[in-house]
Amino acid sequence: MINVTVWNECRHEVEDEDVKEVYPETIGGCIVNNLEPFGFNLTLATLDDPEQGLSDELIENTDVLIWWGHRYHDELNDALIDKLQARVLAGMGLIMLHSSHHAKLFKRLMGTSCNLSWREAEGGERERVWCLKPSHPIAEGIPAQIELPQSEMYGEPFDIPEPDELIFNSWYQGGEVMRSGCTYTRGRGRVFFFSPGHETFPIFRNPHIIRVLANAIQWTNQSHQTGWSLGNWGRPEPLEPGAPRQTYFKKPRKLMVAEKLAASKKPK
Amino acid sequence: MINVTVWNECRHEVEDEDVKEVYPETIGGCIVNNLEPFGFNLTLATLDDPEQGLSDELIENTDVLIWWGHRYHDELNDALIDKLQARVLAGMGLIMLHSSHHAKLFKRLMGTSCNLSWREAEGGERERVWCLKPSHPIAEGIPAQIELPQSEMYGEPFDIPEPDELIFNSWYQGGEVMRSGCTYTRGRGRVFFFSPGHETFPIFRNPHIIRVLANAIQWTNQSHQTGWSLGNWGRPEPLEPGAPRQTYFKKPRKLMVAEKLAASKKPK
Amino acid sequence: MINVTVWNECRHEVEDEDVKEVYPETIGGCIVNNLEPFGFNLTLATLDDPEQGLSDELIENTDVLIWWGHRYHDELNDALIDKLQARVLAGMGLIMLHSSHHAKLFKRLMGTSCNLSWREAEGGERERVWCLKPSHPIAEGIPAQIELPQSEMYGEPFDIPEPDELIFNSWYQGGEVMRSGCTYTRGRGRVFFFSPGHETFPIFRNPHIIRVLANAIQWTNQSHQTGWSLGNWGRPEPLEPGAPRQTYFKKPRKLMVAEKLAASKKPK
Amino acid sequence: MINVTVWNECRHEVEDEDVKEVYPETIGGCIVNNLEPFGFNLTLATLDDPEQGLSDELIENTDVLIWWGHRYHDELNDALIDKLQARVLAGMGLIMLHSSHHAKLFKRLMGTSCNLSWREAEGGERERVWCLKPSHPIAEGIPAQIELPQSEMYGEPFDIPEPDELIFNSWYQGGEVMRSGCTYTRGRGRVFFFSPGHETFPIFRNPHIIRVLANAIQWTNQSHQTGWSLGNWGRPEPLEPGAPRQTYFKKPRKLMVAEKLAASKKPK
Repeated sequence: MINVTVWNECRHEVEDEDVKEVYPETIGGCIVNNLEPFGFNLTLATLDDPEQGLSDELIENTDVLIWWGHRYHDELNDALIDKLQARVLAGMGLIMLHSSHHAKLFKRLMGTSCNLSWREAEGGERERVWCLKPSHPIAEGIPAQIELPQSEMYGEPFDIPEPDELIFNSWYQGGEVMRSGCTYTRGRGRVFFFSPGHETFPIFRNPHIIRVLANAIQWTNQSHQTGWSLGNWGRPEPLEPGAPRQTYFKKPRKLMVAEKLAASKKPK
Repeated sequence: MINVTVWNECRHEVEDEDVKEVYPETIGGCIVNNLEPFGFNLTLATLDDPEQGLSDELIENTDVLIWWGHRYHDELNDALIDKLQARVLAGMGLIMLHSSHHAKLFKRLMGTSCNLSWREAEGGERERVWCLKPSHPIAEGIPAQIELPQSEMYGEPFDIPEPDELIFNSWYQGGEVMRSGCTYTRGRGRVFFFSPGHETFPIFRNPHIIRVLANAIQWTNQSHQTGWSLGNWGRPEPLEPGAPRQTYFKKPRKLMVAEKLAASKKPK
Repeated sequence: MINVTVWNECRHEVEDEDVKEVYPETIGGCIVNNLEPFGFNLTLATLDDPEQGLSDELIENTDVLIWWGHRYHDELNDALIDKLQARVLAGMGLIMLHSSHHAKLFKRLMGTSCNLSWREAEGGERERVWCLKPSHPIAEGIPAQIELPQSEMYGEPFDIPEPDELIFNSWYQGGEVMRSGCTYTRGRGRVFFFSPGHETFPIFRNPHIIRVLANAIQWTNQSHQTGWSLGNWGRPEPLEPGAPRQTYFKKPRKLMVAEKLAASKKPK
Repeated sequence: MINVTVWNECRHEVEDEDVKEVYPETIGGCIVNNLEPFGFNLTLATLDDPEQGLSDELIENTDVLIWWGHRYHDELNDALIDKLQARVLAGMGLIMLHSSHHAKLFKRLMGTSCNLSWREAEGGERERVWCLKPSHPIAEGIPAQIELPQSEMYGEPFDIPEPDELIFNSWYQGGEVMRSGCTYTRGRGRVFFFSPGHETFPIFRNPHIIRVLANAIQWTNQSHQTGWSLGNWGRPEPLEPGAPRQTYFKKPRKLMVAEKLAASKKPK
């Protein structure tokens, strides 16, 4: 069974009346409830939990992490982000939702500003999520377009590296487009960014959106995590017989350098 | 004329006798000297210069930055790396050489560990840099293979995102291969990683290698840097007439949040 | 000077009154006229010219070929398409416009059906061509969006391989999106597909659209076409001393096979 | 159960004594035998079977097609290749082995010459297949390198489009490298090219190679083939209320054109 941790900032649900109304069970709670029937082992975590919701043990035991953050990205501890980045590189799947485009973790993995254009119209505006790759595992069971009657506009230009695969491409009533479903590989880990999911609209109650999440969990999850890792791999012996071998470092390099520096500082 | 800054750690050249012998003018000096005939406006900078060699003014006036670092990546100020990353995203070209695969700046832009396998055989080993894309601007004038009689092995697995384009692919005498010439786009900036260039071998005296650098300067340089940027672009008005507009935020959002928080803390 | 050949089917301009009105000088003529100020060496060719407009000599002397076809794709000689494909692989730039998505030449280079969804509303509908990569050479001088008041809808799903780079992404009034500016590399040649350009709307009179074409000519043109080619390269001698060499084929392989077959058919 | 068809040219096994010795059960037979334990539904087909081994019914019922061809690519009927290409675009998985790089079907799907460099040393030469993506499904259970003591050299430059993902990268004793494991998506279908597998060496008896094939079957197989297809999708009605609709074509376009042409030919 895939261990899925749903991390949710969960402050809007306390601070904003309109969000409370739309998601009385919180955004994270809604996602967890709706993913239940798919048979994942689901854990809910929030920013205000101890250790910002993500203990070392939980991180270690998470196969796929779903992330929803918005207003308080800056509060996340850098040391926690270090751990999460390392865990993704070691093979954990990662699904970044909506305003998480500006989360520290996403910007770390992309290397860009992840800026975009946006507009939060009162009452929202129509979004159509077009599916470009009907046979991709993430698109299984998804129609050619998902119509969202109320959405926040998140549009181009979106400052991301060229996605490995562009699965969804959104249309907005107000005149914009958005690469709304993008896959990436980072180290051993797979990353999926999915832009729908504003806090004041019941987008996480749309069965197609939930199906995308369930599919993305299956896709980002790596069934085999026991293999060799992408390490800093010093290999003194050549693989080919007769090729030169490394005889250079009789002592560890750091020690050698330390000695040299010490020598260079000696009074003359 | 393209403004090229060649940044070199320039400590090996002080600390190691064998490097001094190979590059008495320093690695950065050798690169600058050999690029002279191509007509760039070249500036040399090193780690031990004031402001670690990269003042705000120099950063601002650099079109393309070439980077060679190895032993002292950790000494680079994070605030400087922030500036350089922002400058790349704003359009500066970047060429990362050899052991700079582990430079803070490169890891920032890639989002991965950038680990690889390596072996420094005494006397080096043969490397063949195969060219996969003969018509790419970076490969102009380059033969199907560049033979380097002495090189340090830098091999796969190399923990990088899938390159936008793989231009060079290296063979090593000891049995390894390496994606040795990789292009990336980050924000408005173009990045080229090139793996040959060990400090104890005269690789930067090889005319093909210098030609690759000159080509890469041309390619990473963006001739048009005056355009619009990839910003955080709030756009209250829809482009389409009749579409919903943003009336939500009568005050700046931050202020609204502050007020709500203040209200929620009021004694009742 | 770059030799640009503008190939135009040029039958709509004869058969359809509404096209005649919009492009009395023909679509190809309009493109040629508007590209004049950029200093290219421009040649106009049409389907009804001798050799379908593309003699061997012209093909050989074309650096960049611009293609607009629609209703008569099937009339193109397969032998001509063979030549053009070979010329692209050898380094000619190629710009495929609008309904050329279904041209034999484009389908050959993509390997897919190149199907899309489409709607030709009377009077057209609004299209917004969003620019995703402001610093790409093809986007030089182009604003964040080009608004086309009248366009034919060409929308997703568009059956193409994942583009090397997605430069433009279009929005349509009727509710669709389209990857409208895509780059590819095939052999030594660069290919740019650009979807705006319906025959009944004066899109090729829009200065931004013309600028995109001029930029794309510069980008698809390979300044160096004299280098080595991507051939079928039998190499009997290993590059490494001591490695096994090919002694297998004392005679040409085809001859060997022919002899074997002859022997096997001998009466016994 | 996944329906896998293993197509093998199967002429070397008749014509060449040395191939008969290495693969008395034929190459296709060896692959089928070694894939048996993985639980696929395997069918063997050869060029000299009726309908060149691939009846319409078999094509329709194949989930994944494995292809090994070499000397007689030209004999394949173009109409059969049309069918196979269409079947891949409709979702069939495809695995192209070794000398199939020059198969009509592969060149169709790539759009390039698929040329490479090659050397068939007597007794072969060592190949090391390096794995670049240890966590990719195709690499499950595969070590960092597969050593093949005897192989034919297939090396760069290899004239293919930039792969979606580069999984394997090979080293050769004679001095070459090769992108030896490449993934592509074409239409709804997934394609994997894998270069090891020369007819005179027992490479298809290597358990790692067989494991790669079994993994690639799982990866290229699309579990969901019932969805909507990437068709030529005329959509007269806009999705957005109020947007212009298509009223232009009261009759089918072809008929309109025919009428116009007829009218234009009328004597006046």
